[in-house]
Formats: sequence, structure tokens, C-alpha cells
Amino acid sequence: MKKIFLFIALLLNGFLFAQNLTIEDAILKGRTTLAPQRLSQLMFKPDNKTISYIGKLNGKEVLIYINVPDLTKDTILKVEDLYLSFYSVMPEETKFERFPFFTWFDNNSIIYTYNNSVYLYDFTNKKTTIKVRASGNAENIDYDKNSNRIAYTIGSQLFVSDNTSINTLLDYAKKGKKDGVVQSDLITNDNGADFDNGKGVHRSEFGITKGTFWSPKGNKLAYYMLNETMVTSYGLMKFDTKPSGLENIKYPMAGAKSHEAKVFVYDFIKKRNVEIETGEPKEQYLTNIAWSIDEEFLYIAVVNRGQNEMKLNMYDALSGKFIKTLFTETNAKYVEPEKPILFVKNNDKQFVWLSERNGFNNFYLYERGGKLLKQLTNLKQHISESVGFDATGANLFFNAFSADGMNKYLYSVEIKSGKITQHNKLEGIHASIVSDDGFYILDSYSNLNTPRQIILNDVKGRIYGSLVNAVNPLVNFATTEITLGKIKSPDGVTDLNYRLIKPANFDSTKKYPTIVYVYGGPHAQMVTNSWLGAADLWMLSFAQQGYVIFTLDNRGSLNRGLNFENITHRQLGKYEMEDQLAGVKFLKQQNYVDSNKLGVYGWSFGGFMTTSLMTRTPDVFKVGVAGGPVIDWSLYEIMYTERYMDTPQENPDGYKENNLINYAKNLKGKLLLIHGTNDNVVLWNHTLNYIKQCVDDGILIDYAVYPTHEHNVLGKDRVHLFKKINQYFNDYLK
Amino acid sequence: MKKIFLFIALLLNGFLFAQNLTIEDAILKGRTTLAPQRLSQLMFKPDNKTISYIGKLNGKEVLIYINVPDLTKDTILKVEDLYLSFYSVMPEETKFERFPFFTWFDNNSIIYTYNNSVYLYDFTNKKTTIKVRASGNAENIDYDKNSNRIAYTIGSQLFVSDNTSINTLLDYAKKGKKDGVVQSDLITNDNGADFDNGKGVHRSEFGITKGTFWSPKGNKLAYYMLNETMVTSYGLMKFDTKPSGLENIKYPMAGAKSHEAKVFVYDFIKKRNVEIETGEPKEQYLTNIAWSIDEEFLYIAVVNRGQNEMKLNMYDALSGKFIKTLFTETNAKYVEPEKPILFVKNNDKQFVWLSERNGFNNFYLYERGGKLLKQLTNLKQHISESVGFDATGANLFFNAFSADGMNKYLYSVEIKSGKITQHNKLEGIHASIVSDDGFYILDSYSNLNTPRQIILNDVKGRIYGSLVNAVNPLVNFATTEITLGKIKSPDGVTDLNYRLIKPANFDSTKKYPTIVYVYGGPHAQMVTNSWLGAADLWMLSFAQQGYVIFTLDNRGSLNRGLNFENITHRQLGKYEMEDQLAGVKFLKQQNYVDSNKLGVYGWSFGGFMTTSLMTRTPDVFKVGVAGGPVIDWSLYEIMYTERYMDTPQENPDGYKENNLINYAKNLKGKLLLIHGTNDNVVLWNHTLNYIKQCVDDGILIDYAVYPTHEHNVLGKDRVHLFKKINQYFNDYLK
Repeated sequence: MKKIFLFIALLLNGFLFAQNLTIEDAILKGRTTLAPQRLSQLMFKPDNKTISYIGKLNGKEVLIYINVPDLTKDTILKVEDLYLSFYSVMPEETKFERFPFFTWFDNNSIIYTYNNSVYLYDFTNKKTTIKVRASGNAENIDYDKNSNRIAYTIGSQLFVSDNTSINTLLDYAKKGKKDGVVQSDLITNDNGADFDNGKGVHRSEFGITKGTFWSPKGNKLAYYMLNETMVTSYGLMKFDTKPSGLENIKYPMAGAKSHEAKVFVYDFIKKRNVEIETGEPKEQYLTNIAWSIDEEFLYIAVVNRGQNEMKLNMYDALSGKFIKTLFTETNAKYVEPEKPILFVKNNDKQFVWLSERNGFNNFYLYERGGKLLKQLTNLKQHISESVGFDATGANLFFNAFSADGMNKYLYSVEIKSGKITQHNKLEGIHASIVSDDGFYILDSYSNLNTPRQIILNDVKGRIYGSLVNAVNPLVNFATTEITLGKIKSPDGVTDLNYRLIKPANFDSTKKYPTIVYVYGGPHAQMVTNSWLGAADLWMLSFAQQGYVIFTLDNRGSLNRGLNFENITHRQLGKYEMEDQLAGVKFLKQQNYVDSNKLGVYGWSFGGFMTTSLMTRTPDVFKVGVAGGPVIDWSLYEIMYTERYMDTPQENPDGYKENNLINYAKNLKGKLLLIHGTNDNVVLWNHTLNYIKQCVDDGILIDYAVYPTHEHNVLGKDRVHLFKKINQYFNDYLK
Repeated sequence: MKKIFLFIALLLNGFLFAQNLTIEDAILKGRTTLAPQRLSQLMFKPDNKTISYIGKLNGKEVLIYINVPDLTKDTILKVEDLYLSFYSVMPEETKFERFPFFTWFDNNSIIYTYNNSVYLYDFTNKKTTIKVRASGNAENIDYDKNSNRIAYTIGSQLFVSDNTSINTLLDYAKKGKKDGVVQSDLITNDNGADFDNGKGVHRSEFGITKGTFWSPKGNKLAYYMLNETMVTSYGLMKFDTKPSGLENIKYPMAGAKSHEAKVFVYDFIKKRNVEIETGEPKEQYLTNIAWSIDEEFLYIAVVNRGQNEMKLNMYDALSGKFIKTLFTETNAKYVEPEKPILFVKNNDKQFVWLSERNGFNNFYLYERGGKLLKQLTNLKQHISESVGFDATGANLFFNAFSADGMNKYLYSVEIKSGKITQHNKLEGIHASIVSDDGFYILDSYSNLNTPRQIILNDVKGRIYGSLVNAVNPLVNFATTEITLGKIKSPDGVTDLNYRLIKPANFDSTKKYPTIVYVYGGPHAQMVTNSWLGAADLWMLSFAQQGYVIFTLDNRGSLNRGLNFENITHRQLGKYEMEDQLAGVKFLKQQNYVDSNKLGVYGWSFGGFMTTSLMTRTPDVFKVGVAGGPVIDWSLYEIMYTERYMDTPQENPDGYKENNLINYAKNLKGKLLLIHGTNDNVVLWNHTLNYIKQCVDDGILIDYAVYPTHEHNVLGKDRVHLFKKINQYFNDYLK
């Protein structure tokens, strides 16, 4: 018997006969009209005395100032006026009716990218200037304000421009160097179908989100080069030809040959390209690239393919030579650096490093040469990211979750003393913007009962007032009670968070069909103390139809520390299932849950979990829907899979025990598998192999495919997907 | 109101509480233990005084003689004795426990192919001799008894051997000619991935079943060479690699570039290969290859790509030169020669030609030079094939259907007088074997009430007795009444045949869910007066579960003459649907049919029909199951599609009106599409495109795929298929 903590219950203020959310509205309006009010492009101006955001006036966008700290408002600029100014220099460009995403260039001008070129708007003279231009088909655009250079890719090539003429770019690529337009020499040399330059590598693991890294003053550009010639190809169907053709992608599969990455630095002063000597073995992960403040050194967190050792290496940016390893981290299971080193503001001799080495993500202060000065924080909570230093560099702001993972707050730590201050008090998920001087905080938060509040306060804890107090956007829809709570994991120690949504017009004497929505994999958390408990609107729509919807974050999920996460090592699926079954046990203890009508639905890792639960514990769930599921980890990508599972050669039992192909024959309930035909994350192969196994084993199973869709069914077709899922549960679970 | 002819009703002699056929038994035993008794390898010996067949003794196969005409039996040879004799010459070969398929070489010896080599067994001395050997991976084996040569293919190459050593074969291919082993010179020259030699061409249309044609004495070999370099490729998924790879096939698509065929003749006396000069345009169909008796000339029925003109051309086999066009057939819709010219026995100056030119398949007698001597038959019935001449060549035997297509009989026509004799009298589907001397007839037949009878009679109509009078193999299963009948087509004139199966324990006061099983396309007929009315056992299994199962052969189907068939020209689907809806109207008039619970199921063309009916008349059927359906004729192959539809360029309206993509949005009922992922006949593309359209249109649809399966789901997985279909109707139609 688990002890149950109920901490918050939300009753949506609906009417008794209020309407139900349609699937269309739930899917299409969840982030627009049915989401709590937000302020677009909310930020501090460089003077720290003004807040700016994009509001509306007569239905059209306007830039609004809010004076700090009295919170008086001024409407500053209409989007049509910004466009008119833009039009005067770029009459041939397409018109915009919404503010492009911008940043403050200085206190009187903003800078923004529109159709791949960068523009400056000066509020003083109301004039637009073209800063730098890129070709229209440019991708992966990375603008450096200091040098006014823009790096971008076209196909597999990397380009850089620093002027306003785009026509000379390709000429340069052919003819060689030319003032004002630059391109790394190497790139054309290595230009081939299986090479890529200037893009993120290692399939976006290790916190990698991009492939170009400007040095602090913009005189150098570090970038990735990826060589995939040795990686197995996989054919994705192309539906735009007749008959359908194929597009081959490179897909490095667990245990197989991996791709090879390199890092190069282009020096714009010496006009020279140098390869960073990251050395052998070539199958390694070059992660978390960072520059020294003086632009002389490059830091790379080099992780071995086995992912049990990370070396923080320092390289000479001029010669590319390896200088030294500042420090090494090892872990018998895995290491996973996700944040680059961060130099202390106004002190280029010290940097901080975020690491889970003591079991939780904490900051460590290092001397530039690699000497550990001290552990800066020692929280038993998960620090998710730094938010930056204050004006002097004395304090570092950061976001961290509460120990139970349910709430997220802004903290700061004083570098000198290690003293930690929590800047938000109200429970909930806070996202904070700190002014450049480190004094004011814009605190945007929600919790189960609060759609959204945006409050201006400061580091002293003073509250100046509220910018937004959002109303419940679902007030006109039928009431569905949402409860957040905890149950004990079968380990007897660990609390697991759950979210439970009761049907509309709930009657505790009735028994309801109940659907467990599950993800369960690393890097994700489904339940937090945020608006609706982080539930998606489709869950409310289903609940309004008479389903109980339940979700539990099992061990292996995010924001609870390393031990909570890495217990799943070498046996992805095992502990996750145990915890989900504890959730089922809890559900069966609720009188209103119909234990004979339990369903389960999940996507990706959640599809793996769903299929696992349907076949490894075949008597528990009557109906399952598994989207884009991993069926066999040996068919999944190297970086993710080998971290958690080691290689199939090293861990044959783990791969076999959690290979769902082996359990297909056990299926008793109704199982619908769903896959996007062009899934380049979890290959279509997984479910096709599984269907084949079901046919071999004489097992009846249902299948839906979404042609052209990738790992998720997005856009308007997502409505179709959820209607399909809804219909399936209605047909077989109700 | 249609006039209804009920001609035969069958009541299976089941018990009231007899068991139902399981899906397993219905699928797996329909051609074995649940099929009426048959006699394996039944034939006359060359002396015409003995019938031989393979029977069983103590569970093992034996060769049995039946003396003609007294029908006394002798057991002649045990399979183990045949094998022992075989073993003495081929000890290294795998053992056989069943008689290989054989033919009588002379009255004392049989000849058979086993693992690609040809053996003779002599009954006099009980010895086995190796006649000629081919390599173990040989395919498309074609043995010529006169020359003792065997032609076969390996990969895209054609080989010929005339001795017992297989090791020299490939040496020859490299080194050149060598006594005893021959290979056509040209073949190695044209050996490439997109070339094929010695195999059937034109996707087995026009009656083409093979690619090698021995001359009457075996001195020459005509063969096809196919060039597919110019044809679009299509990728089929290969599931035997990790990840799944692709195998490209050449698929010539309606309106697109087609492949090109050539015919060559290898002369074994002159050791020379010659190309037959079939000329331009290269996109034409070289069909129905035949030899003159003296081996000097080759005849080819050349059909233009438009398929509205056939020229029966005569070529010099020595030089390859075109000699002349014997005659030409044209038709505004299409011509479709399917049988080569047949020289009259003992008269090499005359041949017969089977043609639908007057509206029904009839024989025409030609002088060797191309002069039409006379129309030999003038039946308003469909002649399906000739069975051969009698000893002197005075009479030609042939099989023909009754005018209504329900029965099939053996006939003969006297060449001189044109007098026609019908040799079987009892209604039913007869398959007859005529002795070489043209006197005795082994008449094997069934009809709705007769599982199988095999009777010996003669051309004078004398009956000698019965070899088999098969018992009802379904006697232990629940009774399901099968009715054959006719309704009028909406044209008001044409009778359409149907088969109606009533549920077990039929109660005329009840209303039953009713499933229409449909094929509906050319070249096929679903309903005949044969055992069970040609119903498959799965239909009985479904009927035993409480379904009415109905099938109707609409206009466009086989064995009813040209006008019945070609009314569908340029609009495949239109008249077929009209007739099927007449069937539905008839069903709705039956009190026991639940008009609100109509289902429809079909495969291939029947899948096209099912999808058409579900979406073009969306209020008629509640549930449909469409397997391997053609969705868009422009995605189907050239030879078949252009015959019936012309090209998409010539007939854009016809293609558009019958393109089911355009009707996806109308679907109201439940529709399950099924496809083999490796379907090389109706490409997977069809249903994937359709599913995509359904998603685009917001239409919910169900899907099942059978990985690795081609156009049909065969083998043990067919049980899975029918369980799936059964479940679908149970879920949504019952």
C-alpha cells in the first residue's frame, strides 16, 4: 500500500453542460487561443530601465514599452511602420505583418533576420539598414553582432558573408578569396554527398544544437565537419515522384560503424582554415565547443564512443594543436556533458562547469588551466541551465528543479561564498528573465491552478507588480479535475510523480475506462506543477468523453538526478515498466477506475513502453496505441542507444530481453501501432519488422501509417492522428 | 424487378450441431484433405491401352495402372523402388519420397526432372539413366525430348546443355563453343542487370508463360530477350538486411516508357544465333511464338503498343528475315491473341487460329501461306483452349464453356466438315484427357452437387465406368446452402451469374449480415457450376459464423465472349460497379439479408472494386476489406492497363473518373486496406498514396500490411490474413 500525497487539485471552472473540447481544438488551439495569455518577445532593453514586448493594437502587432519599475506602458512602434521603413530599403522582399524575432542592438535600435538577411532598425531616425545578407536558400544561419558576419549553410557547404551583396558569394566559392566575402577553404574540398559542414553533429545528442561557433569578438569561426561515408544508408520513401522514389539517409545504428566528426576554425584575420587536432579514435564525440575570451583557445568536451569517459580538452585555435586535457570525468554507466564551459564574467581566468558527477547536476568552479577551485553548488536537485551572470560577475543565475522535480525556480549563487538564493517563492514552473545588470527579474510562471502570471521583481525580493495574470482559457469547456500526486516506486524509496485527470461530470460511484499516457524515456518529464499539470488538451478532450487519463514519470526520466535516471542502464524498459505497473496498481485501488478497461498510449520511447506493457504484462491492459515505437534497440541510433544500453556486442542479454520482437507472440489485447513512413529517428523498419513477427506468430494487430510524416505526425494531420487514436479506444476500450 | 433463375441448390449433408470449419482448415486444407478426391498424375500411356496415376499403398506413393477399357488395376512401382534405382546413379542427390512429375518417354519408360536434371526410368530393366543435367540453381527449365537438350536460365543468362556433365557449362560460356554444351552467343553479349534472356516477357500478358521455344525436332531454340534499361525502377523493401535494404524492380507504368523485347533463334546445327527481325517500333508485343513443322519458319503474333492491331508475322528462322504478314486483326477497343497457331496434325500446310474476331473465341483454318480457308467453328460460346488432334488429324478436340459461362465441356470439330460433337453431357465443369489416338476420354468433372467424378468414356459416347466418385469432404461440417443463379444486368439483357451461400442453421425469419465477395476484373470468373459453385472454403467458414456470402460475375469477366468483356473499355470500374449494385439490389430483396449490414471484400481488381463501392456509392456498404487494390490505373503496368484503358494521355477522363484517390473523401463506412509490402504487381504505392489522401481529407481508414508478401498473402500467413478479415467483419458488421 503506497502512501499517497495529493498536493494540488484543480477544478476547471466549467459549466455543468459546458461543451467538450473537440479533437480539432485540442490539437490545433492548444498553443494559441486555448493557451494561457503570454507576452511575445518579452525582454529587457539594454538600459535595464524598460521592458519591451510585442502586443496588439486594433488586431495588429505593436512594440510596447513597460517602464521599470512603475510598469506604465507606451506603444512605441506599429508593425506596419517597421515594414514601411524596411520596404524603403528592400522593396522587392515579401511583406511581413508580424514582428520578426529581434534583439536589441543598442538602446535605440533592434536587429532582426528576415528571409536570411539581417536588418537594423534605428528608433532615432526610424530608418532601416541592411547589415548583412545571405542567399535565400541559406540554412543554419548564425549571425555575429560583433563582427557583423553571418555564417550559413547551403547543402553540405558552409558560407560566411559580411556584406550586403549576396551575388558574389558563389563566385567566391569558385574563384577563391575576395574581400568582404569569405568561405572556409576546406569546405569545398570535402564537399560530397556524405559530408556536411557547419551543422550540428552526433544526431543532436550531448546538448548539440548547432554547427557554428563564433569566437567572442567574431574574428574566428569554429565549425563542425561531419563525414558519414562509412555509415549505413537507409531508404526513406519519397511520395513526390511517380512511382514513389527513395531518399537515402545515413543512419548510424547501435553497434555498427559510426560517423566521424571534425572541428575546424576559420581565422578571418589570417584568412586561414585549421583543423583542430582532436585525434584518434575517429569514432568519438566532440561536444560542447567553447571559446576562451581572448579567442586563442578552443575547448571541447571529448566523449569516447563507449560514453564512459569525457575529457575536457583545450586546443590552440591558431595551430589546431592539442594543448592539454583540463580534466576527465568517468562513470561506469555513462557521462553526458550537455553544457559547455562558461567563463566567469569579467574574469577570463575562471570558468564554471555543470556536471552530474556527484549525482546531481551542480556547478564546479575551475581555474582556466584546469585546476578545480571548488564545487560551487551542492544541491540535491537538478540544475537545468545557467541564466547568466550579474553585471559584475559576482553572482551566477541558474534554473533548478525542486528535489521532487515538480517545480522549477530561479536561483543565484555567489561565486565567492557559494551562497545560494532562491528568487521565486510560489510553487510552480518558473521561467525567469534577468536584466543585464542582474537586478530585475521578470518571473513568468504557472502551476496547476495558475494559467500564467508574469511578475516584475528584483534580486532583493521586492515585487513591483504583475504584467500578466492570465485567465483560464478553458473556462467555457466541461470540467475535468486534474490531480497531481506521488506514489512509491517498487524500490520502496523513490517517489514517482503522477497526474490524474478525471472524466467530466465525474461520478465516484461509476467505473471509468482508464488510459495511461506514457513516455518513460530519458531526457523527458511528463508531469510538472505547471498549468494543467503539463497535460495536453487532447487528454482533457478524452476525459470529457468519459476516460480517466493517468500519467506517471517513471525512473529513467528527467530532472530527478543521476541515480533516478541511470538505473535503467543496459536494460531500457525493465525498471520503467516496474514503475508504470506501480501506477497501474494505484489506479486499480481507485473505485472509479474500471480495472478491466485499462488502456495505454505512448509515442517513441512511449511507444516502446506501450508495446512492452501490452506484451510483457499481457493481462494488464486491454487496449494499447503505440506510435513510432522503438521495437529493437539494435535498430536505433548509436549515440542515444549505446549510452543507455552499451553496444549489442557488449550487452547481448540486455538487447535481447528488451527486444519487443521476442514478446509479440504474447499479445492478448488490442494493439494499434502507428508510424510515419518517413521517420528518420525511429526507422519505419521497427514496426514493419514487428508486424512481420506478429504475422509469423499468428497474432492479430492493428496498424496505421502516416505517409510522408517523420517521427511525429505534425501539422493539421495531427488532428487525424488523434481522431484515429480516439476512435480506437472508443471501439475497443469503452 | 429481375427475373431470377435458380438452377441448383446444394445442401451439404452436415449434422445439426456439426462443427464449423476453422479459418486454419478452410485456408490450409482446401486443396488437400478438404478437397474432393483426385488422382495424381493421371494420364494415358503411349499404347492408349493403359491409364496410369499415382496412388497410395500403406501411406506411400505407388504407380498404378488401370487397364482400358475393363478398368482393372495393377500396382506397378513403389516410389521407394524408383528412388533406389535413382540412388544407384545419383547417390549424392537428396532423397525423394513422392513421385516426381513425369511423362511417358515410350511405353516402357518414364522421364522426369528432379533437382534440375532429367532422368529416364526403364520399366523393363528397372534402371535409371541420367539423360541431361543442368546446374542446381537453374530456373525456367525447358527440356526437349527429341534432341535431349535442356534449356534453362541462371540469372539473366540462358544456357543449353545436352549432356550429363554440368561442370563444363560455365567454362563454355567463357571459352566459346565446345561439343556437347552449347550456349547462345548473344546472351553473354547482352548480359546486364536490365536484360533478361530465356524468360517470359510482357509481364505474362498475351498468354505468355515462358521464354524458350524448341523447334519440333529440337534443332533450333527460339527465345526471348528483354531489355528493361529504359523502364522506371521501383524499390521493394528487403527485410533480410539490417536495416531493411531495397531491391529495385523494373515496372513499366501505363503511359510511360515500356520495355523492349526481341526474339532470337539459336541453330544447333549451324551453331549460330540469329535475331528475328521484328522491326520497329521497338515498343511492341511479340506474342504467341510458334514453329513451322519443318523448323524453317517462326510465327509471331505482333501486337502494337496500342493493342488495337495484331499482325501474324512469318519469319525465316535461318536468316531472321521477315517474310510476310499472314493476316492482320484489328479492333477499335483491343485485340488479345492468347494462343499460338496450331498446325493440323499430319498436315503441315494448314493451321488453326483461335480468335475472338467475331465476338467469341472460335477456330479459323488457315493455309500455311496465310489464306483463310474457313471459319472452323461458329459458336456463341467461349472456347478456352484446344486439347489436340486425334490420331489422323481429322478432328480437333477443344474445351468450351456453355453460353452462360457456367459449364465447361469437351468438344471436337471435324476439320473437313466443321461438324461439332459435344463429348460430355452432364452439366458441370469438365476437364478431359484424350488418349493419343483420339479415342478414349478421361472425363474429370464436378458440379455444385458432385465433388468429383472421373469417368472413362470414348468419342462414340460409350461409358466404361468410373475411376473416382468422390465423397463430400465436408460432410462433418455444418451445413451451408449454396445457390447458383442469375440476375439481369442493368442493361436489361445480360444475365449475370451469382453464387449465394446461406449461414449455417439458416432461419428465413432472421436477418443476416451479408458479405459480397467480388473480383470483377478481366481474365477471371468467380462463379461456375463446379464443386461448391467454385466457392473457397473461407466463405463456408464465414457462412457458418452467420454471414450470407454472395458473389456475382459482372460484365468484364471471363468466358462470356468479347462484348461481355470489352464493354468496360476505357472506363474500368463503371459497368462492373453497376452490375455489382444490381447484385446488391437483389440481395436487398431477400428477407433474410440485413440491408443495414452489407459488407464487401475483394483483392487486386476486387480490391479496386471494393474501394470503388465503398467510396463511389458510400451509402450501400457498411464495411469493406480491400486487399492489394489498384487505386490509380496510371500506377498500374502498361500491358494490362493500356489494353483496357488506353494510355492516360489518350484517356484522361477515364483515368480520372476511375481514380479512387478522388473518392477517398466520400468514405462513410469502415474500410480496411491490405497490402503486401513487396507487391510487384499492384505496387505498395497504391495504398500508401490512398492512405495519404485519407489523411489529407481527414478520413479515418484502417490498414494492414504483410511484410515480405507480394501480390497475395500466401502460405501459412494466409491464415493470419483471413483471421484479420474475419475479425474486421466481426468487429464492425455483426
